[in-house]
Amino acid sequence: MFGRVALIGLGLIGSSLGHAMRRGSIAGEIVGAARTAETREAALRLGFIDRGCKTAAEAVAGADLVILCTPVGTYGALAAEIAPALAPGAIVTDVGSVKMSVIRDIGPHIPKGVHFVPGHPIAGTEQSGPEAGFAHLFDGRWTILTPTAVADPDALARLTAFWTACGAKVEVMDPERHDMVLAITSHLPHLIAYNIVGTAAHLETVTESEVIKFSAGGFRDFTRLAASDPTMWRDVFLNNREAVLEMLGRFTEDLISLQRAIRYRDGQALYDLFSYTRQVRREIIEAGQETPLADFGRHPG
Amino acid sequence: MFGRVALIGLGLIGSSLGHAMRRGSIAGEIVGAARTAETREAALRLGFIDRGCKTAAEAVAGADLVILCTPVGTYGALAAEIAPALAPGAIVTDVGSVKMSVIRDIGPHIPKGVHFVPGHPIAGTEQSGPEAGFAHLFDGRWTILTPTAVADPDALARLTAFWTACGAKVEVMDPERHDMVLAITSHLPHLIAYNIVGTAAHLETVTESEVIKFSAGGFRDFTRLAASDPTMWRDVFLNNREAVLEMLGRFTEDLISLQRAIRYRDGQALYDLFSYTRQVRREIIEAGQETPLADFGRHPG
Ligand SMILES: NC(=O)c1ccc[n+]([C@@H]2O[C@H](COP(=O)([O-])OP(=O)(O)OC[C@H]3O[C@@H](n4cnc5c(N)ncnc54)[C@H](OP(=O)(O)O)[C@@H]3O)[C@@H](O)[C@H]2O)c1
Ligand SMILES: NC(=O)c1ccc[n+]([C@@H]2O[C@H](COP(=O)([O-])OP(=O)(O)OC[C@H]3O[C@@H](n4cnc5c(N)ncnc54)[C@H](OP(=O)(O)O)[C@@H]3O)[C@@H](O)[C@H]2O)c1
Repeated sequence: MFGRVALIGLGLIGSSLGHAMRRGSIAGEIVGAARTAETREAALRLGFIDRGCKTAAEAVAGADLVILCTPVGTYGALAAEIAPALAPGAIVTDVGSVKMSVIRDIGPHIPKGVHFVPGHPIAGTEQSGPEAGFAHLFDGRWTILTPTAVADPDALARLTAFWTACGAKVEVMDPERHDMVLAITSHLPHLIAYNIVGTAAHLETVTESEVIKFSAGGFRDFTRLAASDPTMWRDVFLNNREAVLEMLGRFTEDLISLQRAIRYRDGQALYDLFSYTRQVRREIIEAGQETPLADFGRHPG
Repeated sequence: MFGRVALIGLGLIGSSLGHAMRRGSIAGEIVGAARTAETREAALRLGFIDRGCKTAAEAVAGADLVILCTPVGTYGALAAEIAPALAPGAIVTDVGSVKMSVIRDIGPHIPKGVHFVPGHPIAGTEQSGPEAGFAHLFDGRWTILTPTAVADPDALARLTAFWTACGAKVEVMDPERHDMVLAITSHLPHLIAYNIVGTAAHLETVTESEVIKFSAGGFRDFTRLAASDPTMWRDVFLNNREAVLEMLGRFTEDLISLQRAIRYRDGQALYDLFSYTRQVRREIIEAGQETPLADFGRHPG
């Protein structure tokens, strides 16, 4: 499907893409770039790249497809670095969790004759680094592509075929809408999870060891999202600031009304909300985006 | 270990206790009470009770151990109903998620010569009803017992042995402390989950179908807790009002400070919190209260 693919960044998403390309025989050669020798060596040992490069510029030379898989805060500098080395006709894409900022940071650096189509796979785990990836991460999950008005239709079609071959379903969306949708389906959930874990760990009335011991009451679920990579998530919040603040405002408004219901012992209001939310999970399961098994099918720790 | 055990309520916790008693040969006979014939029939069919009763009073007659497994809002009326039928020397306990209100509601009804020792297993799933239970629910999880000052040491020892035989580890705690600890490790997490699922479903800018489609970004995790039984959770919030409001206040305070960090682009503050919270999950895994597998070991939905 592609002669040479360059992965810039070999963490969870980069390594999963490498494995998925191997599984589907999607690339003739996979070249990978990472900052540290340790990461490049792990990638070679795990076999999801054919060749490791110290710099992104080296890795993109002669590549038909270039995929940026580093935290979104690095994209501006990386785009400036690779621009002179990009092959004519190459497709440049990314996997960043925010899309407006990515277009702002990468777009201006793309040379004429190179096709830039931003993307974002809605799939992941709380683990990071080159050992964390696996070939089926994208299976049955959505990848959102946010082409700009000037995007080449042929490049969009090829990238759609690429993600489909990696197991994903593809949706094309406006970048502004992407950032709003992801603010509620991903960014706010992570923010809330980070926050409650911080709150629980800093109480004076309850010790941290009590929190850990009795976490199976529900708290432990939040620690999964709150164990995600700090650099990646710092960059997400700095780069999707407006949409996150907007969703956070809505969340807080609703929370205050729920607080009032508890304070004034309004059992009916509580019951109504709790019955309604139950259906949402059912629909997510029916849409194939969640396991139907109780407790995520989790085995006792 | 016990001649006859009466389970009042045959939902997730009642049925799991029944199965665990079968597994460990803990009871000579298990008698179960539930409101609906459907539930009693399911319990008999699944084999985790020997006999079904329409009323709690019928079920407790001649029982050595009585376990209340209904929502905590029902405990006062149930205690009044069973009091005259309790056998001398019997132990009465419960599994309710709140302990101060349970002592307030049940305590005054307990006749002389009957031993009341409140309890709470920190284990569960989002599913409910008689089909939801399984024998290993309590394995490796903590059960908290909150005996009052006048509790009989022998009854406490027998109940400790009972829970240990069901697979649990037992901790004795002051009821007030229980309610504070559980407010942060269980009640607030559920409240937050219910709230964000409600917020997401009522936005004008993002449709519910978009929320469902792209929920794998993190949101779907919250829908598990938010799919829990509405009656049970209404009763928890109405009966642990003060401790939940206290923890909610702390959560909101921290959230506002996080909101400010995003607004003023304080990347360092975000990075510091996100790095800190990562360790908390590690400790929960080390304490054996969570699976070490990525993504809860969840299989693609
Ligand atoms: N994790 C998810 O669930 C998820 C889901 C969808 C999209 N995304 C997006 O995917 C991207 C990568 O996330 P990830 O989870 O794969 O991260 P990760 O596992 O932490 O890996 C990040 C990779 O980027 C490299 N890197 C970091 N900073 C760099 C820099 N300044 N210059 C060059 N390389 C650098 C790292 O190299 P070293 O190893 O050598 O340090 C590492 O190989 C992010 O933009 C994120 O928003 C993540
Ligand atoms: N779910 C958890 O994760 C969890 C964990 C620890 C402790 N707990 C506590 O365990 C208790 C039971 O929870 P659960 O999850 O097992 O609930 P559940 O699955 O919803 O089952 C509730 C049972 O109680 C019966 N019941 C309800 N209202 C009743 C009433 N007014 N009079 C008589 N029987 C009534 C129901 O009978 P019908 O089926 O006939 O309607 C059903 O058998 C609650 O106090 C809860 O706080 C729950």
